[in-house]
Amino acid sequence: MRTTHLKDCAAYQHLLQIADKKTASSLNLKRLTAQADRFEKYSLQNSGIFYDYSKQRLDDEVLNELIALAREKEVKKQFKSMCDGKVVNATENRAALHTAARNYTDNTIKINGANISRQINDVNRDIKRFTGKVHDQTIVGSTGKPFTDAVIIGIGGSYLGCEFVYSALKVFSTPNMNLHFLPNVDIDNFGQIIKQIDPEKTLWIVISKSYTTTETMANLKQVTGFIKSCNINIKDHLVSITAKGSPGDDATADMLATFHMFDFIGGRYSVTSAVGGLPLSLAFGFDIFERFLKGCCQMDDHAITAPEHDNIPLLAALISIWNSHFLSCSAQAIIPYCSALSKLAPHVQQLYMESLGKSVTTTGDFIDYPSGVIIFGEPGTCAQHSFFQLAHQGLAFPIEFIGVVNPVYDGVQNVSKGVTNHQELWANMIAQARALAIGRTDDVDNARYCGGNRPSSTIIIEDLSPQNIGRLLSFYEARTVFEGFILDINPFDQFGVELGKVLASDIRDEVAKKNRAAGHSFDNLDTAAKFYLDLLFKKKL
Amino acid sequence: MRTTHLKDCAAYQHLLQIADKKTASSLNLKRLTAQADRFEKYSLQNSGIFYDYSKQRLDDEVLNELIALAREKEVKKQFKSMCDGKVVNATENRAALHTAARNYTDNTIKINGANISRQINDVNRDIKRFTGKVHDQTIVGSTGKPFTDAVIIGIGGSYLGCEFVYSALKVFSTPNMNLHFLPNVDIDNFGQIIKQIDPEKTLWIVISKSYTTTETMANLKQVTGFIKSCNINIKDHLVSITAKGSPGDDATADMLATFHMFDFIGGRYSVTSAVGGLPLSLAFGFDIFERFLKGCCQMDDHAITAPEHDNIPLLAALISIWNSHFLSCSAQAIIPYCSALSKLAPHVQQLYMESLGKSVTTTGDFIDYPSGVIIFGEPGTCAQHSFFQLAHQGLAFPIEFIGVVNPVYDGVQNVSKGVTNHQELWANMIAQARALAIGRTDDVDNARYCGGNRPSSTIIIEDLSPQNIGRLLSFYEARTVFEGFILDINPFDQFGVELGKVLASDIRDEVAKKNRAAGHSFDNLDTAAKFYLDLLFKKKL
Repeated sequence: MRTTHLKDCAAYQHLLQIADKKTASSLNLKRLTAQADRFEKYSLQNSGIFYDYSKQRLDDEVLNELIALAREKEVKKQFKSMCDGKVVNATENRAALHTAARNYTDNTIKINGANISRQINDVNRDIKRFTGKVHDQTIVGSTGKPFTDAVIIGIGGSYLGCEFVYSALKVFSTPNMNLHFLPNVDIDNFGQIIKQIDPEKTLWIVISKSYTTTETMANLKQVTGFIKSCNINIKDHLVSITAKGSPGDDATADMLATFHMFDFIGGRYSVTSAVGGLPLSLAFGFDIFERFLKGCCQMDDHAITAPEHDNIPLLAALISIWNSHFLSCSAQAIIPYCSALSKLAPHVQQLYMESLGKSVTTTGDFIDYPSGVIIFGEPGTCAQHSFFQLAHQGLAFPIEFIGVVNPVYDGVQNVSKGVTNHQELWANMIAQARALAIGRTDDVDNARYCGGNRPSSTIIIEDLSPQNIGRLLSFYEARTVFEGFILDINPFDQFGVELGKVLASDIRDEVAKKNRAAGHSFDNLDTAAKFYLDLLFKKKL
Repeated sequence: MRTTHLKDCAAYQHLLQIADKKTASSLNLKRLTAQADRFEKYSLQNSGIFYDYSKQRLDDEVLNELIALAREKEVKKQFKSMCDGKVVNATENRAALHTAARNYTDNTIKINGANISRQINDVNRDIKRFTGKVHDQTIVGSTGKPFTDAVIIGIGGSYLGCEFVYSALKVFSTPNMNLHFLPNVDIDNFGQIIKQIDPEKTLWIVISKSYTTTETMANLKQVTGFIKSCNINIKDHLVSITAKGSPGDDATADMLATFHMFDFIGGRYSVTSAVGGLPLSLAFGFDIFERFLKGCCQMDDHAITAPEHDNIPLLAALISIWNSHFLSCSAQAIIPYCSALSKLAPHVQQLYMESLGKSVTTTGDFIDYPSGVIIFGEPGTCAQHSFFQLAHQGLAFPIEFIGVVNPVYDGVQNVSKGVTNHQELWANMIAQARALAIGRTDDVDNARYCGGNRPSSTIIIEDLSPQNIGRLLSFYEARTVFEGFILDINPFDQFGVELGKVLASDIRDEVAKKNRAAGHSFDNLDTAAKFYLDLLFKKKL
């Protein structure tokens, strides 16, 4: 969909003027947060998420122009097009239909006449049946033992989202099966996992859309060799999740089952497809996975239907752009005050940085404005004792705090300084957002001086239920996609990573030659590569 | 030690001029890395670490001025002063003697006549004895069972470094005892740990220098309540690591043992003190901990004695400053091609960002130049499938790649595409550094265009031996301290985090009042705080 070039948008020009005029003085958070109606005006709740942006450096004028920008870029229309199955991933000539993976509305999604909704339902039905049989021990390992562990062989989008949801839900609900993740081609990743599992009780799930991902295929070979060495039938222990027609989609292969993933759902958006569906259903049961999907669906519906000024992921995207384009912030932190959400930041790091870390617009022109920023984060209060020194006194970066109203633990709780641990956690979360905003500028020596005026948002969910984890996941997906649409970036391709693969392939070929003929020299490589490969064969520094 | 103000240094002024003149054109990595002698000239090896900075955007002129800057700031003298026990932490009127914790030279360190070396040796002797008794089951739990697990109750510097070393060494050597970390006041952090341990076989190690850290004391109370509820004698299951004379240093307390930490070793530099010493010796035996210390000592000695142009941590510090001050990079990534080093980035994130994320100089003046930057990172090749899209085509940030010549796993290895998994890992590491440097600018469509010229260094260690992990730890400590000395920042205090603690205390008091009297209202708090606390008590969004 062709819209006005970002910098040519009237609203963008207005925002530049406002930033120029206001940021030095009037957009100070100490003043802004002192306004009586500030919090109520700059916070909203919908679809199970409370969103507080009262501590962002913006006022009505900024907000109105940001919303005007969203309208000029027609982002809601673009988002709807995406959900309807239009080809929003133009470089790869594909739809981007992760929302169809959790579509509990009455709308049937079709692409070129094919009923996508039915295809997705069929996969979910198969997952439900298969995992049910694993749980009731109709399906067991080749030596007759029930499965207790599953290892996911997959990298990037094939595990990061699943790892996030698994980490969160395993606090909420004790897993039936433990999940392990084998993404890295580092042989010690494999070596550590086999120390923790009993091969007779382990299911291996290989996840790759193309079934050609180098790391995943190398690990699959390593794993099948290992399974054989244990005198276990691979056919009873291996499952694939892959595209229809890929080399892994082979009914004659030594494989217990295959579940399809679709070319219209990209890796980093694939948690709600079979990529997350099979492992999470094995761990927690299909019902819990379905509750998770319903949470996603609810937030999707909100993103599609809510008007701009009430649309939580859209507001978050606009605020992200305000911070990076007009307030010069080049990084953002995600700080959940919840240890169960410790894998949220690594997931969003991939989701956002791989989607928006681009140098071309959707029309193929080089971008002449900031694209995506760096995302990082650790849970609070731990982060307070790690890098918050810099957050308060060093380079400013906006923070998204996340709070969970009710913890899962329901045993005896002790009280320290008059409060429970969970209350202490919240006292800190509330205090940090305020401290960053208002600073400490009066009656204080320079070493203790904090300038304040450091922006943050606070996101609240009620508990760690599957629905709420789904809402959170969908919120970050929608926020990323909205930001891409406004910045005219295709959030669904990733051509920047190709060069590294090409160069790695050249180096691999040289190593393979040396493996075949010990006399092979690396003289035709550059000096650095030759040095490192010689070192690798010499094994001594 | 008073030195010339950074911006008044002749070398700094020269660097500004050079950056102005050269960065647009001549410091392009495609050209630089094509120079035949580049790699040999811009790499060096010492004390078990190979350091390659040939893919940094610098030439001899830049390098010479950076070294001149180090000399003008007398950093080697400052570093030696630190190691000799001078009061380099002026704001807190303390020495910074983490290097004394692993001093295997003949030099005896004294502060005000007190023999520090002997005090440290005494603690290590106690750790050796105590952990020996735990391992030979002279010391067992109160129900007579040997200890299999230890839980560290401590936050920030009391666990992050230990967690990094534990994660690395547990791949190298199967632990005698499993370590668990309870840093977060989040009650679910506690709730998850008690699911994984048998209280009869668990030792709890509380770590806090002051024995007043809010989170740690709250968790300690939670833990002691739990131990009592299991009908286990606390006295046989609890150990403290704390400063002499703190409330936790109490011979009459219900405590199996106490090990001292010293005010001259700050939390984030404390891995080689009892803070790391006790847990790591429990896990791996004191001998392995001592090998780790000896690796640190060797790198310390290198940092003290090597001339500027051969000094690896000093060069790394200067390059960090070159990137942040003259090439406008506001973040750095640490990417170990080694899954065992997955906790290195979170450790260095604290070490560096808490040390250098400051707004005042050592003379108490506000800094008028960039202080520390953001540090983040994940292991490769995983990071390639996560955020490297942005690294190649988005905002440039320098990367430190880390390679390990030999993996630990020594079982059967399969071969894919003619190479082992470990060779594949290295092919990728080598390829990424090169791809970032040279880019892809010819004969390519815009979507695949990579501008290149993105700087990186590569650090190589031979294996994951305790010595090498020690060298790596000490390298990052020295690099951080050198950078602080050049930037005139005290790397040992952290006054920026005080404000958050003060505000949290105010909020906690309000919560405590409400806990005592349900009718208490939060009306005297700001609107946001009142809303969040009401929500916390209402428990429903």
